[in-house]
Amino acid sequence: MNIGIVGLGLIGASFGKSLKKLTDNKVYGFDINPDVLLKAELVGAIDEPLNETKVADLDLLVISVYPRAFKEVAKNYLSKMKDGAILMDFCGIKRGIEEDMKELSLTYPHVSFIGAHPMAGREFSGIDRSISTLFEKATCVVVPVKADIFTLERVRDLFLSVGFSEAVFSTAYRHDEIIAFTSQLCHIVSNAFIKSPMASSHFGFSAGSYRDLTRVARLNPTMWTELMMDNRDLLKNELDGLIARLLEYSKALGSGDEQKLYDLLKEGSDLKISIDKGKIR
Amino acid sequence: MNIGIVGLGLIGASFGKSLKKLTDNKVYGFDINPDVLLKAELVGAIDEPLNETKVADLDLLVISVYPRAFKEVAKNYLSKMKDGAILMDFCGIKRGIEEDMKELSLTYPHVSFIGAHPMAGREFSGIDRSISTLFEKATCVVVPVKADIFTLERVRDLFLSVGFSEAVFSTAYRHDEIIAFTSQLCHIVSNAFIKSPMASSHFGFSAGSYRDLTRVARLNPTMWTELMMDNRDLLKNELDGLIARLLEYSKALGSGDEQKLYDLLKEGSDLKISIDKGKIR
Repeated sequence: MNIGIVGLGLIGASFGKSLKKLTDNKVYGFDINPDVLLKAELVGAIDEPLNETKVADLDLLVISVYPRAFKEVAKNYLSKMKDGAILMDFCGIKRGIEEDMKELSLTYPHVSFIGAHPMAGREFSGIDRSISTLFEKATCVVVPVKADIFTLERVRDLFLSVGFSEAVFSTAYRHDEIIAFTSQLCHIVSNAFIKSPMASSHFGFSAGSYRDLTRVARLNPTMWTELMMDNRDLLKNELDGLIARLLEYSKALGSGDEQKLYDLLKEGSDLKISIDKGKIR
Repeated sequence: MNIGIVGLGLIGASFGKSLKKLTDNKVYGFDINPDVLLKAELVGAIDEPLNETKVADLDLLVISVYPRAFKEVAKNYLSKMKDGAILMDFCGIKRGIEEDMKELSLTYPHVSFIGAHPMAGREFSGIDRSISTLFEKATCVVVPVKADIFTLERVRDLFLSVGFSEAVFSTAYRHDEIIAFTSQLCHIVSNAFIKSPMASSHFGFSAGSYRDLTRVARLNPTMWTELMMDNRDLLKNELDGLIARLLEYSKALGSGDEQKLYDLLKEGSDLKISIDKGKIR
């Protein structure tokens, strides 16, 4: 396939690197920042810059930009894309993208539209942190907006070819609902956790649990503000649920209710064990 | 040295294994559970069971039991210990232990008393999960209660010999205050986090941040109830601080205040970067 990638940040550039390392697909790329585009060629994230004439040859165009930029970026390419080509996006929320894609598909019915969210990331951003192994054993959530089953199979096979363990098909709402918990809430908790007055004293007094809890406190605030704000109904629901649960522990501590604290801790621990065993799915 | 270890759980047995693997010290052990004691010999966590006659030969006795059991267990051994021997405990909170040790030192002035907390752990407990590499590159917090500088040097050297990177000396209060944040709060957050109704749906929709945030949701509820309850003043303070901070994010999401959410995220991210660089100490 001829594959274009627009937006060569951590995810876009890692996807390019993994495609070039593990497949025979030809990879064209573009980034709004000319330095990043130049670097992408130098570090082997793309074969060539994606110019106007190349767009017509693409079988797949991946748009890996912030969610609110998606529609305008897509419009720049859609009219030049060939019949049967696939337009895919890679951002971390999907309801807005689905709306955008539905709207665009009315004007550009010759193209397939698929939302995707690679379940992989790092606490760093940008092409300098991109790695070809980022997607190894990760899943990719796929939200089909306008695509037939053969197109979805091609996309799934492509994901498997760069190391993903599985393509998980989902609706946009279900994706956003689960991701509010599995990803967005983690980032808020970690980010709020590190603000304890004790944090700067942790040296020598911390181990794995501190390291794990604070890892994603570091984030790209511009991108995450957009992701979180555009999912704020579901995210606030998750966050308020967590706050309510934390208040139960606080109450048990405050009143010295040992049995209650034990019950709370045991419930969480048992649940974690069950979930890890895949008993509750 | 002749070293005794009472309580052959994850920490006690790992300490025994690391002593036997990395040093020439002789390791005697005891556990209230005869099966565990037998297993400790079989898996190489101790050289021999610690019997009454051996206690008199010990240079160091490590008591690695739940905090509330410490005093009674210590009393079983102290009168038999030789002049200049060291009694050390390994539990996760230190103010209560310090009180116990001060009291015991009046009756048993011939022994040195030192509190210690190895900053290492796993989300599993028990001798079956013990490993000789548990303390590699970890720090050990040392709370001297009654010990001269030469004794403290011996203890520090012993910790370094089994792989610890550093012995960090602290007061009991300072230890409990920092640990409330770096360890206890992590466990509560993780334990409460996993109770989201979304948790059982995470398969395929999660990656590193979910994995890290939920790792220590699994815990030994009996032990942690005791550790947390006996540190509840400081822990509740940390927990309520976190809840207050999380409410700020919730408020920004609820009101759609994008600038505020950005400011909150950036503040946390900048702080994490600074702390990791060790700029704020």
